[in-house]
Amino acid sequence: MPYSQSVRGKRKTNTRLGELDLVRELRARAARGTRAGVRLGIGDDCALIAARSGEELAVTTDLSIAGRHFRLDWHPPEAVGHRTLARGLSDLAAMGARPVAAFLSLGLPTELTRASGHKSASSWMSRFLDGLLRLAGEHSVPLAGGDLAQSPLAVADIVLMGAVPRGRALLRSGARPGDALYVTGTLGGAAAAMERMKMQVREAGRIAKKSEPALAPHLYPQPRVAQGMWLVRRRAATAAIDLSDGLSIDLGHICEESGVAAEVDALALPVAAGATLDQALHGGEDYELLFAARPAVRLPRAIAGVRVTRIGRVVRRRKGKPTVTLVSPQGRQPLEPRGWEHFK
Amino acid sequence: MPYSQSVRGKRKTNTRLGELDLVRELRARAARGTRAGVRLGIGDDCALIAARSGEELAVTTDLSIAGRHFRLDWHPPEAVGHRTLARGLSDLAAMGARPVAAFLSLGLPTELTRASGHKSASSWMSRFLDGLLRLAGEHSVPLAGGDLAQSPLAVADIVLMGAVPRGRALLRSGARPGDALYVTGTLGGAAAAMERMKMQVREAGRIAKKSEPALAPHLYPQPRVAQGMWLVRRRAATAAIDLSDGLSIDLGHICEESGVAAEVDALALPVAAGATLDQALHGGEDYELLFAARPAVRLPRAIAGVRVTRIGRVVRRRKGKPTVTLVSPQGRQPLEPRGWEHFK
Repeated sequence: MPYSQSVRGKRKTNTRLGELDLVRELRARAARGTRAGVRLGIGDDCALIAARSGEELAVTTDLSIAGRHFRLDWHPPEAVGHRTLARGLSDLAAMGARPVAAFLSLGLPTELTRASGHKSASSWMSRFLDGLLRLAGEHSVPLAGGDLAQSPLAVADIVLMGAVPRGRALLRSGARPGDALYVTGTLGGAAAAMERMKMQVREAGRIAKKSEPALAPHLYPQPRVAQGMWLVRRRAATAAIDLSDGLSIDLGHICEESGVAAEVDALALPVAAGATLDQALHGGEDYELLFAARPAVRLPRAIAGVRVTRIGRVVRRRKGKPTVTLVSPQGRQPLEPRGWEHFK
Repeated sequence: MPYSQSVRGKRKTNTRLGELDLVRELRARAARGTRAGVRLGIGDDCALIAARSGEELAVTTDLSIAGRHFRLDWHPPEAVGHRTLARGLSDLAAMGARPVAAFLSLGLPTELTRASGHKSASSWMSRFLDGLLRLAGEHSVPLAGGDLAQSPLAVADIVLMGAVPRGRALLRSGARPGDALYVTGTLGGAAAAMERMKMQVREAGRIAKKSEPALAPHLYPQPRVAQGMWLVRRRAATAAIDLSDGLSIDLGHICEESGVAAEVDALALPVAAGATLDQALHGGEDYELLFAARPAVRLPRAIAGVRVTRIGRVVRRRKGKPTVTLVSPQGRQPLEPRGWEHFK
């Protein structure tokens, strides 16, 4: 389906990377992901998506830029591809949407589209697609189109379209006082892995292939698509968001949009192995789901194989009081929003 | 609706351009475009789009990169914004789709987001949005979301979603031998204007404000959205494409996808005032529609106020014969695909 318009057709201009083989590769590989719902993605000006009646479409775009969201000298290309798609899938997960199609706009320096001459004959782009399409396959989402251009700076913009029963999408704005707060998985793992990665780079100048598994929470985060869909199906959540910026910021968004405040129990937080409480509170890019549910709702310990932990509650907003409060045996303290660092 | 997720919410990380005012401006301005069909675009992880039953959604993405698709030192920011959206709208027009929503991912150097200190207090970004949102308003398409990131290189990825009655989208693949070929508007105007612009830059180092109207075919091309929708409504066309790369390339795409050949009558071509035949045949970015119609179909002289001209015919493909032939009083010659130049 895929690499449609752009590549075959009208964006011919963009595809003058000198190598038509490149475009063919991209299209051929993307085509494997094709499935129902995408009627036409190839060789035309647009992809055509069939929406089911009674459903709304959720759409999100995420721009990833070399030097800011990833570093060519640090991140394996497969991880950049994975992370690019994961950001978009995680947005769908936060709405509880079923992924329908992905579109990728890729701007790359020519050298990243060429085989390296190394023993591995694959280009950076080819390995980027390995990572992206592997994750796409795991979530059965076809790459239905996009654009390709030569660019002095590597940039990737991912568009995800998902479907959700009309009126049932998980919003940030539905949390009410009395709701319990939950997170999927563990927190701080991505921030801890990023610290380990930075340390390795400082010491060795690069990331050792063998240490990639230990860096997986940063390099290969798992968007919680099945968990979001489960919450919609069971009508279990009143509000949800994905933890991309970190708990302290993202819980703040739920509070702001819902007009409420929240309390987080420090001792209840599912801190990832090797992570600190600080990383669990403020580390970004865990891509877990944070959601609110009415107190009477009984949730299982795990949803679709991923642990769910109750971490606090939604309370009424009061003037002069902090929006988010961290409750620990030492007492109560405001939890100020604090984000994570980019790769500068 | 707009500038949604990204800007307010999860892409907080991306929005650290230092100026929250910037994000507020963007969201406030995009919000004006809101309309039915887009239920939620702001303050959440995704925008929600309501599809009508019996319709398919057409989706297209177009990446524009400084130095390649536009030049910061040549193009007025308003024109860059206009051209960014026009590329996407033209893809919808080529399918005959009604525009539903646009999404914009914007990566900008910090200085382009700041007021210049000049007498005009507007930043490059603000003027870019002026141009983009003016065209969006003309086509009643809301900016429903997107992403914003700091980037050393200016990049803009536009996503357009449109709707078309199921099974009725204009494809490249439907042309049959015997069909007549038509184009909207005139051809070569954008290429001629680009030549004038280059000459001005060579001579004066910049584009004079007063000469912008003369450069309009290049700076402010008009996507033929209403004309594409008309063709779908009347079931008048068997195939269509927008002329982004130039007639010689884009007619080749129709032939390739439809498995046919074509003849173009040189004398029939509606060459734009000030353009050459060569520019009409090979100049890109006119964003007119090229379409095929059964010979019995009677078309008006103009569709929605834009002239329609019969320029040739679809014929059977024959081995060893050129795919596209130019027919002139001097005889017949193969019309080889030849594209336009980027701004390198």
